[in-house]
Amino acid sequence: MNRTLVSDVKNHIGEEIKLQGWVYQIRPLGKIKFLILRDRTGIVQTIILNKEIDISNVERESVVTIYGKPKLEKQAPNGVEVEVLKIDLMEKAQSPLPFEVNRATELTNVKIDSILDHRPFSLRNPELSSIFRVQAEIVRSFADFLRQDGFLQMHTSKIISAGTEGGTNLFPIQYFEQTAYLAQSPQFYKQMMVGAGYERVFEVGFVYRAEDHATSRHINEYLSLDFEMGFIESEQDVINEEIRLLQYVFEQIRKNCAEELKTHNVQLPDIKAIPQIKLGDAIKIIRDNFNKKIETENDLDPEGERLICEYSKKEFDSDFVYITYYPASGRPFYTMPDGTGLTRGFDLLYKGLEVTTGSQRINNFQMLIDNMVKFGLKPENFEFYLEIFRYGMPPHGGLAIGAERLTQQILNLKNIREASLFPRDRYRLTP
Amino acid sequence: MNRTLVSDVKNHIGEEIKLQGWVYQIRPLGKIKFLILRDRTGIVQTIILNKEIDISNVERESVVTIYGKPKLEKQAPNGVEVEVLKIDLMEKAQSPLPFEVNRATELTNVKIDSILDHRPFSLRNPELSSIFRVQAEIVRSFADFLRQDGFLQMHTSKIISAGTEGGTNLFPIQYFEQTAYLAQSPQFYKQMMVGAGYERVFEVGFVYRAEDHATSRHINEYLSLDFEMGFIESEQDVINEEIRLLQYVFEQIRKNCAEELKTHNVQLPDIKAIPQIKLGDAIKIIRDNFNKKIETENDLDPEGERLICEYSKKEFDSDFVYITYYPASGRPFYTMPDGTGLTRGFDLLYKGLEVTTGSQRINNFQMLIDNMVKFGLKPENFEFYLEIFRYGMPPHGGLAIGAERLTQQILNLKNIREASLFPRDRYRLTP
Repeated sequence: MNRTLVSDVKNHIGEEIKLQGWVYQIRPLGKIKFLILRDRTGIVQTIILNKEIDISNVERESVVTIYGKPKLEKQAPNGVEVEVLKIDLMEKAQSPLPFEVNRATELTNVKIDSILDHRPFSLRNPELSSIFRVQAEIVRSFADFLRQDGFLQMHTSKIISAGTEGGTNLFPIQYFEQTAYLAQSPQFYKQMMVGAGYERVFEVGFVYRAEDHATSRHINEYLSLDFEMGFIESEQDVINEEIRLLQYVFEQIRKNCAEELKTHNVQLPDIKAIPQIKLGDAIKIIRDNFNKKIETENDLDPEGERLICEYSKKEFDSDFVYITYYPASGRPFYTMPDGTGLTRGFDLLYKGLEVTTGSQRINNFQMLIDNMVKFGLKPENFEFYLEIFRYGMPPHGGLAIGAERLTQQILNLKNIREASLFPRDRYRLTP
Repeated sequence: MNRTLVSDVKNHIGEEIKLQGWVYQIRPLGKIKFLILRDRTGIVQTIILNKEIDISNVERESVVTIYGKPKLEKQAPNGVEVEVLKIDLMEKAQSPLPFEVNRATELTNVKIDSILDHRPFSLRNPELSSIFRVQAEIVRSFADFLRQDGFLQMHTSKIISAGTEGGTNLFPIQYFEQTAYLAQSPQFYKQMMVGAGYERVFEVGFVYRAEDHATSRHINEYLSLDFEMGFIESEQDVINEEIRLLQYVFEQIRKNCAEELKTHNVQLPDIKAIPQIKLGDAIKIIRDNFNKKIETENDLDPEGERLICEYSKKEFDSDFVYITYYPASGRPFYTMPDGTGLTRGFDLLYKGLEVTTGSQRINNFQMLIDNMVKFGLKPENFEFYLEIFRYGMPPHGGLAIGAERLTQQILNLKNIREASLFPRDRYRLTP
């Protein structure tokens, strides 16, 4: 007998079916017992009327096979109830459980560290498991949109040789006799692949930052959604590509994750135009409107990001805002200068948090060499990256989106760790 | 004026268009000059009739913008030729080039190490760049098939704490004050995610083996295509899932990479049933049919893999063959035993090379603990993995496909490095 999934039970009213899953709840009601079964597609109420069916040995979260007959029942969740004919205990769960997973209210009392210590078990809770369904939909729709737009998916090495990006915040690897490092980003590779002739490439992959700080917005291994595109006119082509991309991603999430959004009480708006504010103007706006001074001219601090988003929400009714024209001194050497000391680099902020960094890049070989020297870097250390610039590199630009941050902001999660299956931070290496 | 892609030129006969790309070839023919332009969609012949258009400064592989008028021309590639009205040199390529990229015959003389030393430049050659279009199609169709079948894409950490999988062949990482390791596979995580309630998960991600050998079939960082599924009856459910998956992947490649297959002179057959041979029988067959003895009872050696594939091709007309029922002593501790000293583990060989390893796994907590002890492992070191088995783990199994190996075998490439964009091996850390 084939298994019927919970989501399909309503199509088998009156038939005998086989269900398999985990015991989510058991509720005795006098002589009758209710057993709520959970599988990957949802939960269904089953009812045990036959006194000879003994479930005294069936602990919550045990794996069971239930043979039964579904009937319509207005008072049951989703209007369906399955009368149990037979129940087989496949794997008994130990008790007590690490914590309760069958009540949303209960879970809010479970601290983030306890959730992460028991990560797989915690995902038995539908609210927590739904986070990664949304994340998977972000990744899928990101890739599908770009493919439709002529981008090629690539997979570039995460093991890099010494000193490629300046050498700070790198995790060293013992690579046979040599010391290598975990890649901080696929930046060089994606540019090289534009120059290789693919023109448009994207990558979904982990990147690594050996940053010491422990905040609710940083993890040391994160999923970077990168794209890079050739034959652009300016960074505005990159920004426009991202706006269309995010419109698609949001539309797909609304369509395919309606249940998950409901679970998190989130309404995802249409993305219309996204305002752009030059960094210099943003700093003035923050000072004038919020009476707060940004200490540096190079970037916004976390509170600055929060405030300029507050402003953008009030002025433009937009959860998103691009900050543009960062000074050259605050951006990497490969960022295209605008000729006035500023650059064609930009960040995208979303509900108070930076979720994207991007720019037009320098594509002329000599200009790139000169800029490296200006930044105190030795071009001879970067030959593997520079070579393709010798042989015809088109104008290009790109960006990177942090997948966990985007998930976090879409679902209004307090801590980025909630949006990472197995986060790695300053102190956490397990599970 | 918007750019027209090379693939779209035929739809603009007689109109003035703007092309952008790289100069693939220049052929003077008396007073007339032909310039072959390449962009990401292909090559097109342009013709310079106007003597005032000077291209003496345009070296091959330079980036150019060409304004011109397409006309039908039977003798030109694809039957279209563009008369050049104006040409702008965007980025001049230096000369000499590292090697020629515009002739297939030329490239076969370029050794693999030279290709890899100049990897981005080498991909200007259509034969080489087509390899990664096929690989991207493998990855896309792998993911799409599994999604349609209810699998969730996951991204699990590649930084693992000490000793999780026995400790051999691991690359150590300096993770702040601790030593961590690069993950050898997402094995534990995908099982944990089945137990987390997702039931069916897949991952596309790099994994790392610090293996010392340098062969044409090994690289130290490779792209692993993993899936794991719960509520199976036996390993046969996993095998059946893979057969349907491979049928879909091959069908999609035939459909979407017809040009690339043609470039590599490959005809990709329909996959029908795939024969299964028990390892013990395979060893006998190799001995009886090829007069060759396999030294171990635990596995086939590379020549054994080649010979049993030769046998499978002759007997069953199948490029694929499953080897099943490996002895417990040759498989990892989590492999489900069959009760006779053998296991429910299997390999899939394709044209003489192992491309998949999989099995049904042990799902009972106590049985798993007992097996670990039998393997000389300490369960207390694996608590992060074992915990979910305490709380109800369904019967499950899964497998991993090496993406580079599958690409290599589909396209009949001699060396796995040809199927890796930026391979990492015993000695190579750049580009």
